Amino acid sequence: MTPNLDTLMMIPGPTEVPSRILRALSRPMIGHRSFEYIALQKDCEARLKQVFRTENPVLIYTASGTGGMEAAVTNTISPGDKIIVANGGKFGERWGELGRVYGAEVDEIVYEWGHPVNPDDIAARLDERVKAVLVTLNETSAGVTSDLEAVSRVVREHQALLIVDAISAMGAIPCDTDAWGLDVVVAGSQKAFMLPPGLAFVSVSERAWAACKQSKAPRYYFDFGEMRTAAEKGQTAFTPNVSMMFALQEALNMLFEEGLDNVIARHARLAAAARAAVRALGFELMPQPGAESNTVTAIEQGRLEDPDAMRKHLAGKYGVLLSGGQSEYKNRMFRIGHMGAVTEREILTTIACLEAALSDVGYACERGAGVRAALEALA
Amino acid sequence: MTPNLDTLMMIPGPTEVPSRILRALSRPMIGHRSFEYIALQKDCEARLKQVFRTENPVLIYTASGTGGMEAAVTNTISPGDKIIVANGGKFGERWGELGRVYGAEVDEIVYEWGHPVNPDDIAARLDERVKAVLVTLNETSAGVTSDLEAVSRVVREHQALLIVDAISAMGAIPCDTDAWGLDVVVAGSQKAFMLPPGLAFVSVSERAWAACKQSKAPRYYFDFGEMRTAAEKGQTAFTPNVSMMFALQEALNMLFEEGLDNVIARHARLAAAARAAVRALGFELMPQPGAESNTVTAIEQGRLEDPDAMRKHLAGKYGVLLSGGQSEYKNRMFRIGHMGAVTEREILTTIACLEAALSDVGYACERGAGVRAALEALA
Repeated sequence: MTPNLDTLMMIPGPTEVPSRILRALSRPMIGHRSFEYIALQKDCEARLKQVFRTENPVLIYTASGTGGMEAAVTNTISPGDKIIVANGGKFGERWGELGRVYGAEVDEIVYEWGHPVNPDDIAARLDERVKAVLVTLNETSAGVTSDLEAVSRVVREHQALLIVDAISAMGAIPCDTDAWGLDVVVAGSQKAFMLPPGLAFVSVSERAWAACKQSKAPRYYFDFGEMRTAAEKGQTAFTPNVSMMFALQEALNMLFEEGLDNVIARHARLAAAARAAVRALGFELMPQPGAESNTVTAIEQGRLEDPDAMRKHLAGKYGVLLSGGQSEYKNRMFRIGHMGAVTEREILTTIACLEAALSDVGYACERGAGVRAALEALA
Repeated sequence: MTPNLDTLMMIPGPTEVPSRILRALSRPMIGHRSFEYIALQKDCEARLKQVFRTENPVLIYTASGTGGMEAAVTNTISPGDKIIVANGGKFGERWGELGRVYGAEVDEIVYEWGHPVNPDDIAARLDERVKAVLVTLNETSAGVTSDLEAVSRVVREHQALLIVDAISAMGAIPCDTDAWGLDVVVAGSQKAFMLPPGLAFVSVSERAWAACKQSKAPRYYFDFGEMRTAAEKGQTAFTPNVSMMFALQEALNMLFEEGLDNVIARHARLAAAARAAVRALGFELMPQPGAESNTVTAIEQGRLEDPDAMRKHLAGKYGVLLSGGQSEYKNRMFRIGHMGAVTEREILTTIACLEAALSDVGYACERGAGVRAALEALA
């Protein structure tokens, strides 16, 4: 047995939470209608808007990211509305499920895992009947980032709303909300924001507000209108997780100290190193070339017989936690999350320990090849 | 100006969070699909069931209490179903709003603030068409606790579900879920559990599960079925707030160390002291005799001209935060929350500082009369 140290969290959320943020999380409670709280929320919202690159409100829900996705659907789409869903994995699939639960007519474009959204597919299906197009900027399950700017060019030729799950992207992968004309963008706390799970952030364009006023889907806890009215006073419609707001403020402090562009560049650099390393160890990536995510690297099992057993060994002996495959790819792939509080140190640690674990389970590859490739990519 | 110390939170949620719980909140992150997390959730659920006095599952949602209330409605009630709502204040009103949003035919019994639910009123309206009766065990806005056992006797003579908002009661005021045949009971983290806001706890009886399978109201994030399936594996349907689960475990440690019955007795004893004190200072309580809450004391303004100004002064000079009136009672009352991490010390502190603030704003009363009455009640 090894000492029972804290595990290094290299999964696509929840991520490592830096001690600065953990300390903010444990500040003594304050009232959620106090002046101190109002100043806190206003500061957080103002800086979230900069992260989202939007002038529109960003609503802060006490819920996980899926709650934000539900808010996006119920506030803009009415039963019977036609929507287009791009489904390239577990989270794209969720858009379709939400649409169907709330009575939408769902035109679902299903992609093989690893393939990004093709704007031409959406263009071919768009017509004036389509109320909204729902896409995933970064499909966590398949490690795929789609070209959202290209998608937006296609959608913006029509009246349809463009609704984006940016949960595992926001802050780490470019998402230019206003410039690309994105109507509703959903983000979550436990990804590039380096926070625990528990907050969802949702930006809402003027077009989406107009749709909200028309929408007949039922909603209460997630209602945009109640939240917007409260947000104008620096509050939320229902009691917020005040501790998470303390932590969000500290996370934003860290992101702005580093610089938002630098954070994005860091994720790109570290992701390139991770990709180079696993390729040097003889693996292939699940994403099509050019669609590789900068927040999560999805790796096909290749010659590795039992990816879940390898991951269990890696976590147990070396204290490094990776993710496995989901749904049809269960135990057919593994994933390295590298979002949020991740530096060269965490990437090199992960690759070195991965090499050790691969060796332990009898996977044949040149010792040190992964770390060498990572170092070369970082040089 | 006084030193900028932490404020003593004597409001009906969020409450003071003890340092033991704040430290648990700031533990390093773990994966929400890990064995460690699964053991954590299973332990929390097992002990939550003891707090709820139920053998049925208690689902743990990452949301504030209102999210739990929405779950109660959408999982059991279909559009067109007739429901009876007992509305004795801001939170009873919320049941009616939720029912209407989700298409129920709402038969609302409106009580003057201060009056508890009268079981005879419910008996008079119950018939076989009624799908559910929705009540508030402890109406925070009016400081009123209703006799839920008496309500349950009436409802249990019919097929109707009994759905209870126990958010500001659970753990502090008796709520005998199974013995009283309560079908859905909703609690929240930021009340007697001494936690930050951000988790809602929802118990679900077998009758409610059966209703859930029939219910046609749309839901996704709050779906009982998905949550129940996940809970059987010690997980949640969507990413939980892991940090709050650490804190919940520590809160349950504290509640069980003290003993659940002792916690309830402590709340009763401290509430009696608070009531005696404010009466000795010349105030009257909003609740009808016998309906006074043991978690929040609601006080009519009486001779106090500007309750909000007094509260602001009390918070600013003495660092003690009380709540004001809501809705039609805005600045016509004030409220002392005494739930969760509250002992004799906090009650005496609050009463002594309240006396000081009342004196400062020119409210005439005998100096020390409040503390004397509190001490006598505690003796």
